[in-house]
Amino acid sequence: MKLNEAKNTFIQSWGTFGSQWGINRTMSQIQALLMITDDALSTEDIMETLNVSRGNVNMNIRSLIEWGIIYKEYKSGERREFYRAEKDIWTVAKRIMLVKRQRELTPLIQLLNEINNTPIEDDDSKQVEFFKKQVESMKSITDQADRTISKITKADENWFWKTFLKLFS
Amino acid sequence: MKLNEAKNTFIQSWGTFGSQWGINRTMSQIQALLMITDDALSTEDIMETLNVSRGNVNMNIRSLIEWGIIYKEYKSGERREFYRAEKDIWTVAKRIMLVKRQRELTPLIQLLNEINNTPIEDDDSKQVEFFKKQVESMKSITDQADRTISKITKADENWFWKTFLKLFS
Repeated sequence: MKLNEAKNTFIQSWGTFGSQWGINRTMSQIQALLMITDDALSTEDIMETLNVSRGNVNMNIRSLIEWGIIYKEYKSGERREFYRAEKDIWTVAKRIMLVKRQRELTPLIQLLNEINNTPIEDDDSKQVEFFKKQVESMKSITDQADRTISKITKADENWFWKTFLKLFS
Repeated sequence: MKLNEAKNTFIQSWGTFGSQWGINRTMSQIQALLMITDDALSTEDIMETLNVSRGNVNMNIRSLIEWGIIYKEYKSGERREFYRAEKDIWTVAKRIMLVKRQRELTPLIQLLNEINNTPIEDDDSKQVEFFKKQVESMKSITDQADRTISKITKADENWFWKTFLKLFS
């Protein structure tokens, strides 16, 4: 297989995978492209390789920088900006987990806490009780997911996987 | 707060959360509604509560049944079908993980294996080497994620969380 073909296949699949986990397809594709390219690439390089508009590239580049998984780079004698991916996949995975936790899990936990601390009124006290019980159990699993993400993102890769997998073997 | 209002707030947030993790918003909302309702509900009950068309409800009900997180139920003297959620949130979480693993993670791992086992040609052998190295590291993290899901979905809830959290404390 030619290198370009292999790269393209990988980028498409990574884009699909990202979108299945709630990450914009183009954002995943840009990250994939930079991740498998040794050099830094310009906006134009990315537009051309992925066949995506400048606006779309710029928007997703901004997000990727915000997430801390790509970096801006300047080359001497070049006015254009270049971008380089964080190349360590474990670091990338941890940063994505942290962003998703902060933007998605934290608000959900806050809401569950709010509902938990609010008196709920209804003529049917059995329904209220059942609702409270279910909210409580969802709060417990989201809290646990939150603690897990917190621990994983602080852990060292080798230690984590070795210990984690031994636990279950 | 009135029970209906609290339920509605919860359903909306759960729908948003689901869509942020690649699960159809209406599908998440139906699951949320059934999860916090003690009784089984009919298609009409769901349509009315969520303000969603019959076609949309039917489509998502089918997916939820396929995922093993809601069940069909018949009531004597009733021709309509009713639906009841799996109420144990740990069971729900495990089943969702299994479906997402099978549909999304497994194909990605297969692709990474394929790329890994295919000779890649290019004039620039350094680029090929770098690409191979990155694919290898992504294969390693996706393999680990796969094993983790496999272990978690086989584990008992209490044992899992107790042991898991102790590991990091």
